[in-house]
Parts: sequence; C-alpha cells; structure tokens
Amino acid sequence: MTGADALLRTAAAAGLDICFANPGTTELDLVKALEGSGVRPILGLFEGVCTGAADAYGRLADKPALVLLHLGPGLANGLANLHNAAKARTPVVAIVGDHATTHIGKGAPLEADVEGFARPVSCWVRTSRSADALAGDLADAIAAAMGPPGGVATLIVPADCAWGAADGLADAPARVARARVADDAIERAAAALPGGVLLLGGDALGSEAGVTAAGRIAAATGCRLMGETFPARMERGGGLPTIGRLEYFPEPATDSLRDASALVLAGAAEPIAFFAYPDLPSEITPPHVPVVELSAPGQDGVDALERLAEHLGVADGPLPEPAPPPPAPAPGPLTTTSLGAALASAQPEGAIIVDEGISSGGPYWAASPGAPRHTLLALSGGAIGHGPPSATGAAVACPDRPVLALQADGSAMYTLQSLWTQAREGLDVTTIIIANGGYEILSIEMQRAGIGEPGPVIAPLTDLGSPTLDWVQLAGGMGVPAVQATTAEELTAALDRALGEPGPHLIEAVLSSVRMS
Amino acid sequence: MTGADALLRTAAAAGLDICFANPGTTELDLVKALEGSGVRPILGLFEGVCTGAADAYGRLADKPALVLLHLGPGLANGLANLHNAAKARTPVVAIVGDHATTHIGKGAPLEADVEGFARPVSCWVRTSRSADALAGDLADAIAAAMGPPGGVATLIVPADCAWGAADGLADAPARVARARVADDAIERAAAALPGGVLLLGGDALGSEAGVTAAGRIAAATGCRLMGETFPARMERGGGLPTIGRLEYFPEPATDSLRDASALVLAGAAEPIAFFAYPDLPSEITPPHVPVVELSAPGQDGVDALERLAEHLGVADGPLPEPAPPPPAPAPGPLTTTSLGAALASAQPEGAIIVDEGISSGGPYWAASPGAPRHTLLALSGGAIGHGPPSATGAAVACPDRPVLALQADGSAMYTLQSLWTQAREGLDVTTIIIANGGYEILSIEMQRAGIGEPGPVIAPLTDLGSPTLDWVQLAGGMGVPAVQATTAEELTAALDRALGEPGPHLIEAVLSSVRMS
Repeated sequence: MTGADALLRTAAAAGLDICFANPGTTELDLVKALEGSGVRPILGLFEGVCTGAADAYGRLADKPALVLLHLGPGLANGLANLHNAAKARTPVVAIVGDHATTHIGKGAPLEADVEGFARPVSCWVRTSRSADALAGDLADAIAAAMGPPGGVATLIVPADCAWGAADGLADAPARVARARVADDAIERAAAALPGGVLLLGGDALGSEAGVTAAGRIAAATGCRLMGETFPARMERGGGLPTIGRLEYFPEPATDSLRDASALVLAGAAEPIAFFAYPDLPSEITPPHVPVVELSAPGQDGVDALERLAEHLGVADGPLPEPAPPPPAPAPGPLTTTSLGAALASAQPEGAIIVDEGISSGGPYWAASPGAPRHTLLALSGGAIGHGPPSATGAAVACPDRPVLALQADGSAMYTLQSLWTQAREGLDVTTIIIANGGYEILSIEMQRAGIGEPGPVIAPLTDLGSPTLDWVQLAGGMGVPAVQATTAEELTAALDRALGEPGPHLIEAVLSSVRMS
Repeated sequence: MTGADALLRTAAAAGLDICFANPGTTELDLVKALEGSGVRPILGLFEGVCTGAADAYGRLADKPALVLLHLGPGLANGLANLHNAAKARTPVVAIVGDHATTHIGKGAPLEADVEGFARPVSCWVRTSRSADALAGDLADAIAAAMGPPGGVATLIVPADCAWGAADGLADAPARVARARVADDAIERAAAALPGGVLLLGGDALGSEAGVTAAGRIAAATGCRLMGETFPARMERGGGLPTIGRLEYFPEPATDSLRDASALVLAGAAEPIAFFAYPDLPSEITPPHVPVVELSAPGQDGVDALERLAEHLGVADGPLPEPAPPPPAPAPGPLTTTSLGAALASAQPEGAIIVDEGISSGGPYWAASPGAPRHTLLALSGGAIGHGPPSATGAAVACPDRPVLALQADGSAMYTLQSLWTQAREGLDVTTIIIANGGYEILSIEMQRAGIGEPGPVIAPLTDLGSPTLDWVQLAGGMGVPAVQATTAEELTAALDRALGEPGPHLIEAVLSSVRMS
C-alpha cells in the first residue's frame, strides 16, 4: 500500500467519497490510488470549478468533499472559491500535490510556497512528512474541516509521500458537536426580542429546524426575522416562515434596523457593510440599537433557537402566516422583476437555488418566499465566479434534486468551464444567465461615487458588450444545450423544457434594457 | 488630486501606459483616476487574463504593465500567471485594491490576507499607508519590478488611500543596469567551451545580440548551443543561429549532455527536472560533466557573451550555417508534425509565437529555426493557462507584429476568456488550438509511471472528450471568428486567411489521432 492508497482509503472509510479534481504529474500516485479506493473523481477543467463545487457540496452534504489540486499554481487557481468556502465555514478538504521532498528547493518551474498560498483561506494547513503519515494527516484534515468551527483544511502531499510505502489506514475522526450557548444568552435574547429584529445566519438559517423555531419565536414575540445578506445556506418556501434579507447597500440596511428595539444575532456575525464608503460607518447597526448575541457563528444555533422557543413557551407554537405563492410574471420583454417571478413560479418542489444574480437577483428573493420548499446557496465570500461551480457541486451532492442557478453574466464568465463538468456528469442543473451586458453592480457603485457619466477611457470597464457574449454558443461549445429567452413567456417555456428533461441546460435571459440599448 | 490620481499619473510619467484591469468597488477611485491619466485600461473578464497579458507585455516591452485587481480574491485569480511572470523574471506592477483601512479587521465578506496571497509570487509587496504615500509607493514598485533582478511588485492600495488627498507625483525611478560578470568568468567559459554545451537562458536567449554572440562563439569553439526548455523570450529564425531546446523529460535531457566536456551557463540556471521521479536525480546534468557559470540569471548575459566572443577573437566572426527553411507540411490528416510544419511555413516576418503547445508543441520547434525572424514566448513557470492571455498581452505590446498562439486545448480552457479581450481590442492574434481531446501530457506521465491501461475510475481524468469541446462555438461566443481544420491543407488555408485579415482568429486544429479514435 502506498501513502496515496492509505490516504484515499482513509477518506472513503470516513465517508468522503467524492473528489473534485484537476490533477497533474505530482498527483499521479494519488490518481492511481483512486482506482478501487471508493472515492469517485470528478474532473473540472479549471481548479476554480473544483473548489467551488466542493464548497456547495459541503454546504449541502454535511461532510466535506475532497479537492485534488496540482502544486501551488493549481491551488492558486482554486483560491477564490476556497475563500468563499472559508467565509461560509464550509467543510472542504483540499489535497495539493507538491514536488517530492528531494526536489523542493531546487528551483523547478512549478516550485512555489504552497503553504503560503493556502494559509489565507485555510483553517488548517499541513505538509505531510512521510508516506506513513499521510493517512493520519488526512484524518486530522477531516477533523479540522468538520470543526466546529470548520472550514477549509489543506493537506500538502509531496509526491514521494504519495508513492512511498505506508502501513495502513487511519481511523475516521469522531464528529464533534457544536457548543451549546449558555442559558443566560437565551434569557437575554428573550428579553430583547419584542420590538426587535432576529438576524439569522449560519446553521440557524441553514436548517428547517432553525428556521421553524425562529418562526415560532417571531409569532410569539412580534420580532422581525431577517437573514444574512449572503447566506451560506438557507431553507425557504413551502410554508416555512418568511425571512427578510438584510439589504446589500449600507444605507437601506441600516434604515431597516433603525426602528428595532434590539438586534438579536442567531448564528450571524454583527453585520458589516460589504464595502466601506467615505462618509459611512462600517457597522450596519444604528448606534442606538443594542446588539444581543443568542449564538455566535460556529455555536449550535439551532439548539439555541429551539431552547429560546421553549423558554417562550412556544416549542410547538404556531408559525407566522405563510407567504403567498409567487406572482405570475408580467408578460413581455424580460425585466429582473419578471425574471424573478418566472423562476419562482417555475421552480419545482425540493429545488436547490444557487444565487449569483448580483445586481439582478433581488426580485427573485422578493418573489420566492412562497415558492415550494427549496434550499438557497449564496455568495458568502463575495468572490465572484461561485455560481456555476456551486451549481455543479450541488447537483453532485443531491442528485435527486433539481438545481437552478440564477447567474449574472459577468460572474459566470469567471468559471464558465463548469458547464463542461455539468455536461460530462449529466447533472440536473438549469443555469439562467442574466444577460445585462455589463458589470452592472460596478455601474451602480460608480453612480454612488458620483461618476454619473463615465468618460470614454473608463466606460468600457463596466461594459460587457462589444463584443456581446453569446451564451448559447458558449454553452454549446461545452456540450450544454442552450436557448435564448427575451420575454417572460419564452423564459417560462424554456424553464419548463429544461426542468422536464434530465441533464444540464442553459437559458440566456436577455433583459429588455440591454436589447433596447 | 487624490492618491489614485497621484499613483496613475506617476505611472504614466514613468512610461507605464497600459493597465490590464478587472476592477471592483474598492478600486473605484483608481478607475475614476484612469480617465485623463494617460494610462489606458484594458478589461479582462477574468483576472488570470490580466496577469498573463501583463507577463507577455513585460517580456516584450522591456517595461512593466500595470495590473489592477479587486481585493484578495481578485489577486488570487491572477496568481497562477503571476507565478509564471515571477519565474520568467518579468517586470509586472500589480495594484490590488483593498478595503479602506477603517474597514479592515471587521470581517467583511471580501476581507482577506492580501499580502499573504501576494508574497509567494512577488519580489516586492507593500500595503500603502496613506494617500500621500501612494505615488512614492508606485515608484518603488516600478523600481522593484524592473530590477535587476526584477519580477512582480505588488502594491496593495486601501480604498481610503486612493480616495484621500495627495500632494503630487513621484519621480520615475532610474533604470539600474544589470551587473556585468567578472573577467575570470569569461576566461573559465572560454576554456570550458570546446567540446561543451553553451546553455542560454534569460536575457542571453531573449535578445538578438545575445543569440548572435552565442552563434559566433559556437562557430569559433565548436560548442553546441542549447536553450532553456521554456524560455521567457527567445529570438529565433531569419538566419539567427539555431539553438536547440533542452528536452522536457529528464532522461533525454541528461542524455543530450552526456558527451559534453562541460555545461556553460549563460543567463540560465543549472537545469533541474520539471518533476521528480522515483529513480531519477533532480539534476539534469550528468555528474561527470562540470558546470561553469558564465552569467547567472539577472546578470548581464548579453554583455558576457559579447565579451566572450571578443575574448575568443570572434566579435565580428562568422555565424554558423543558417537553418533550412521549414519543411512543407505533409498533406492529409493533421498530425503534430504536419501542424508544426504548417505553422512554421505560414508565419510571417516578425511574428510573435506564443507556445503553450505542451505535449504537441515539439514538432513546431523542430520545424521553425529556419522560419522568418520571430520572437517566441514559452511557459516559464509551468502554470497552464498562460497562452491565451500571453497572446493578448503580446499583441498589446507589439501592435504591428502578428501574434500566433500555438495552444493546447486543455490549457486553453483555463483562460479562454482571453478571446473576448482579443475581440474587443481588435488584436491581431491567431490562435491555433491543438485539439487532441485530452490532457495528453498526463497520459504520457501515466505511462511513464507504469499505468499502462488506466481503469474506468481514473481514465476520465485525462480525457477531454465526452463531451467534445467545440472551439468554433467557444470562440464565436466571445466574438472571435473561428474555423476547424482537420488536414494540413485546411490548416494552411485557414492560417493564410487569418493572417490576411486584421483582428483575432481561432483555428481548431483537430489531430487525426483524435478523429480516428
């Protein structure tokens, strides 16, 4: 048995049976060991596909996927989506092959400081020292990734550790429970909630139990329910309590909290503006609103909410009125509003919604709380190019659930290679490209910064026209059938067709504001 | 004047007038300051496009381009091609916008350890402390990037430093000459060369003067001329001396040096195997062959070669026989041999050849030493996805020269977004996608490792079929006209058409081994 065999069989025994991979020569012994290991590799044609897929997989599967990457540059290509995973506290085990220990320090072209690349995104980094150590190192990586608090664990495997002889497997690490909050946190939250806002995040927002308990608490106390702006995972629809979303821009976000008697945090960190602006504070919460922590990220937020409901005497209490069904989309040329309504109306029971809609995603949120039960994944770390890989990983994690990706065009270009993996694996993903022909969020920020009419040098920096991206051709080039929709009727018909057929589809939804310009 | 104004005007005054950019909100004041600064931004739809373009630009322009990136994740997406630039010692100035200093440390989604990401690829990293410091920081970054030895200088600009008020510009740094080698290095090389191999790299291979002096030395001493396997820049063709290429795999590379009386290094480091293998040393040079350093990377290798020629009395001596013109491509279904011959036969005077042919590039090298004068750029750092951005940056640096990109399909998928920038800017780039339908180099390495017949789990990891990538559609989706060629005649006709028209073109050259499988 080689070190690589020991590593992969330890992974499989611990239940890690998926490996998103783009390996090279330094990973050849790990590749060889995959055969018969019980771990299934899934090829991505760019490392950002692999890491983003692993992020979504981990959010949904409650266990990490393996990612297999080629030396420092391969890891570098996957860092942005590992950053997103880190911010979402997703369990991911990244395996990075490195040169043999005898080869390091001699200046080969691909030599790099792999640990240096890994540290900013990793909660745990280790370079294996021997073939015999690999299985134990992998078990430690799994434990670190699972946490709590959990995150990205990066194990760097020199090639000679992979090809050397190893004694045997390591035991799977025991699962460690999240810490329960103290009773006085429950009591403080109960006292603060009437007239307040309960801000949900992390596990509190990501489980039906947490959201349900929050609904009972809201019905009992009259507090408002809000969720983090970009939740790692949110359970929604199908009669679950409606939970608002904290606004993206700091002014309306702060305004939404201005009349609250308190802000109670359940699994969410204290909200901070996405970006700083010259005349605004970083903190979203108005200074006069006290912040009360029910549970911190990484603690057991579901338990905290359930104990709070019990404390309030509503452990089996009524839920708030369910949200109405999604509105019918207004017929005619597509707008973000009709697009959001069309998607919310079309989504089937049990869908997974991957939201990288950026500036165009808001209307879908508004339209969809009364849609059938679904899980929503958002851009927790803000590093764009997360949507197409996430949709890929979500479909691998939940092969029986349809995946719908609400996807801005500019962000989609970052990791469009994901479509090929969707085609190869026959994944049930429908991607709706919101074609607005620009980095619209940056145009909005320009207007906020007083650049009303960008000059000829800088205007092209937010313009994705000239030439226009043709998503039907791009998807077709990677084996994904695609159509264009320019009206709500066309979008609805395209969604019905895509959802009625197995395998991936792409719909280029061209907004009327673009076509008329 | 803002700090951003001061930075960009200092750049323009120092001659840095191109900025490959993918900015976001934290760079808005830098974007605003571009207008009227004299620096022209060129948008890339993924950061790896920007950094790879800057690498090629710096190799050809003898000055750095600016790269403008969005926080840690934006830098992360550009790291692989910055790694390539670092290994090539290309001057690049990377400007990374960061959160305002008041915002850092509060856990905003895009907060990351930007310096941590930058360090592994940078010869110089600094985070600006104030708006007033920005211009001076930029001047220091230019100096560090230019060297010697030069490389990637990363300046991190917090948003409030960009938007704050600044006093004025900073002076452009003075250019520092490379160090001349000592006389005894010349004498030792002269003594060692008869019967030896002169291995050229860095500046010695990248300039007509260096290559010409080396040719005279070879004619005088009978030494063999060889070049680094993956030169940052190589001047070739049009009667310049033929310079062999050190083989990629260690066994033939070592064999090629076995009968040498000495290995003399001019601008090249001592050769090290690309990867380590269980039973082979890292060092390519056979133990019995003495290594003599004429000039180290970063020293003035051209001066060293010219002084060596003078020392040998051949400062104006004859050159070796020029290479014969490229062979005519064998008609019929395309092979790597006919593809290489077709390209070498078609390339016009003054072409820039960007070689990311990987396993399929060798025959072009063999066919082309007698082609018209050209400059060749190769994958110095081994991080794939370098070719399409490099071709883009090469065309920006040298708008009057045709750029021909010899491009493996698997590597092209890493940074295919480059095609859009080529279309937008109307760049004169012809990309020849070598469609072999697989990660062929990895298949070869599998065979070397004794995996003769990969099993069903791992075979897909080197297979880019199922589904087949359709490069005509992929290019068309980004506005680049494209055709497929399956025979040498079709390839020659397509090359003639592409070279006869302005703007970018793509030719999908499908190898017969793929079509027949």
